Amino acid sequence: MALPSTDTSRHDNTLAVIRTLRDRGPAARVDLGTLNGISSATVTSISAELLQQGLITERPPEAPRPNGRGRPKTLIELAPNAACVVCVKLSINEIQLVVGDFAGQVRHSEHHTVSTLTLNADDLEALLEDKISALCTRQLTGFQRLAGICLAVQGVVSSQSGTIIWSPALSFRNAPISARLAKRFHCSVLLENDANCIASLLAAQPAYADCPNLVVIMLGYGIGMSVLISGVPFLGANGSAAEFGHSKYQPDGALCACGRRGCIEAYASDYALYRAAADPLELPVGDSAHPSEQQMQALTQLALHGNPVAKRIYAEAGRALGVGIANVLALFNPDLVLITGSGVRGFDAMQTAMHGAIDNALVAELRGTTRIESCAWDRDMTCMGGIAIALNATDSQTLLDSQTAREA
Amino acid sequence: MALPSTDTSRHDNTLAVIRTLRDRGPAARVDLGTLNGISSATVTSISAELLQQGLITERPPEAPRPNGRGRPKTLIELAPNAACVVCVKLSINEIQLVVGDFAGQVRHSEHHTVSTLTLNADDLEALLEDKISALCTRQLTGFQRLAGICLAVQGVVSSQSGTIIWSPALSFRNAPISARLAKRFHCSVLLENDANCIASLLAAQPAYADCPNLVVIMLGYGIGMSVLISGVPFLGANGSAAEFGHSKYQPDGALCACGRRGCIEAYASDYALYRAAADPLELPVGDSAHPSEQQMQALTQLALHGNPVAKRIYAEAGRALGVGIANVLALFNPDLVLITGSGVRGFDAMQTAMHGAIDNALVAELRGTTRIESCAWDRDMTCMGGIAIALNATDSQTLLDSQTAREA
Repeated sequence: MALPSTDTSRHDNTLAVIRTLRDRGPAARVDLGTLNGISSATVTSISAELLQQGLITERPPEAPRPNGRGRPKTLIELAPNAACVVCVKLSINEIQLVVGDFAGQVRHSEHHTVSTLTLNADDLEALLEDKISALCTRQLTGFQRLAGICLAVQGVVSSQSGTIIWSPALSFRNAPISARLAKRFHCSVLLENDANCIASLLAAQPAYADCPNLVVIMLGYGIGMSVLISGVPFLGANGSAAEFGHSKYQPDGALCACGRRGCIEAYASDYALYRAAADPLELPVGDSAHPSEQQMQALTQLALHGNPVAKRIYAEAGRALGVGIANVLALFNPDLVLITGSGVRGFDAMQTAMHGAIDNALVAELRGTTRIESCAWDRDMTCMGGIAIALNATDSQTLLDSQTAREA
Repeated sequence: MALPSTDTSRHDNTLAVIRTLRDRGPAARVDLGTLNGISSATVTSISAELLQQGLITERPPEAPRPNGRGRPKTLIELAPNAACVVCVKLSINEIQLVVGDFAGQVRHSEHHTVSTLTLNADDLEALLEDKISALCTRQLTGFQRLAGICLAVQGVVSSQSGTIIWSPALSFRNAPISARLAKRFHCSVLLENDANCIASLLAAQPAYADCPNLVVIMLGYGIGMSVLISGVPFLGANGSAAEFGHSKYQPDGALCACGRRGCIEAYASDYALYRAAADPLELPVGDSAHPSEQQMQALTQLALHGNPVAKRIYAEAGRALGVGIANVLALFNPDLVLITGSGVRGFDAMQTAMHGAIDNALVAELRGTTRIESCAWDRDMTCMGGIAIALNATDSQTLLDSQTAREA
């Protein structure tokens, strides 16, 4: 058995220091040592190297403490402009681009309305190249390097091969997208399912630190899911695991956007709710197959203000969601199910029926002690998760590049 | 960071040698080295120690090879009587006890008919103590030590705390069973779900070596499941994951033994099939709530020979199973789903409807390339898996005990 080399250990310790600074902000060397179980001497040596590479900076010492006890600690922090990453979120008829700096902060965000369903594979590549190029020209000039790009896509993706297998935002399938963008922009390009980006972001929050087995359900135009097992996204054999939206509520039930019947999504997604309501209720005019936020807000308000038709529609959606969650509890037995996504706007109108369906479906031993909670939605959550994933994935390369640049 | 000590590495290498001998039978030292990436000198040193401890024996050298080339290799093998383990399988109205030797071979098996549902927690403990004690007196005298006991139980168990949380074989719940037996028999007592025992056994077979993400479905009185993710049983937060039998086919559908409605088990288990058939068909007399193998064979034969009522009942069971498997494919995306258990006798009468339901439920991208196969049932499979698990779990202790005995 080979013993671990000192270099590997030095590299791991350096990454640990960088990630602690990113998660916690400016910190003293001694605290970085304690938090990561590294000696003070090692932190001092690592930070000297990172300072020389321009990856961290020292804060000017604080004023002496009023009580006069102890010397003020010198804090170090990540140099935000040492590198940046870009997250591109592709969803139905919208592309969002977000720039994150080396310290993990969002520095720029832009949205573009695009008829994604009319694109072919070449159009999509050309479009992404154009948008990212324009972003590089306008927004990335202050950064020393573009470390990586994360594509966050609704649907089934193979992260390993960089292929979008199937997305509700696209009318074509099996698009190998990562390789071409990586060649064009000379950086690593990660492809991630959008729900996995959000789950990674939420899992890092202190409120969910005791929930290593975490299920995140994303309600919206479609219904997505991410499953973290012991903190790691569960992808299955080919990356198509956790397709909660297409698990079944009623065999041969309502028609789903996937073309099959009875999926949870065919009852609890935005288009399903709007479809059920469009005929009996007077709702804002618009694309009823792809209802807008305004249309969905109007429908949700009707349900929350007691309109019996809207209440019935949301209750049925809650039952479908509840039966689906019951299956998830029986099969995954997670610590926590978090429900979020833009569709969480209607959660209050669904949750009584949802909890009723779960309790009706499972005996107490299988219902277990899993917490089931909703989580306020922020449309930037996906990209914030994508930026965190891209930074973590590219830290090693950034270190190497900085070292090479210094030596050159 | 602490460097791994030489002792840890020596211990791991010793365990690797023992497990290779158990999996492959007698082997030459040089081959044991190659298979485990250990030097010949280390294997020679390890085998000298194991010989001294009585854990392995040398085979008499084979006759020289007919072609005269090469010296015949001396093979070493595990000493079968160096230790034994007992697997106790608890299922509805039956207890099976199996003795496995140190080489992993079954040396004795016995079945007892017991009204498990009338037992209370004390009765169960007393019964298991009696049966294992009697087994020790009659069957274990030739072995140097009882290394461990594996309890394989239908239902939800917490392996960590050694508690049977809920079993269809028992009318009480939350029975902490392992600790008392461990105290009584002075050995480790593992508690495992029966399906996990079978999955561990199947996963070790060469035919499934390329399927690290394996789902095993057990059909029978109840319906169980085991999920291996990257070869490791997936237990969930509290051990109640993979409860496939109680995932839903039809919300508010047929009554399940668990007391809820619409579970897969309420359509495709033995009791569900028999319940649906008992009224319209003339079947062997017996306990229709717990049909015997003979009763189930009679019903299966009717379906396979074209009786339209029996055919319809099995087709409905196949549809329920198919919808359940569709959910498993969407959520777990495994390499392989293996269907086994005593209920696999009726698989031929179910499988057309089952495959139809899966294809009807999922688009091709979510159906994926998962193999779905049945696997012939052998009632000893659970205990064979339990013996393998118990041996693997107790090898370290066996090594320690042998060393202590030698030094004393």
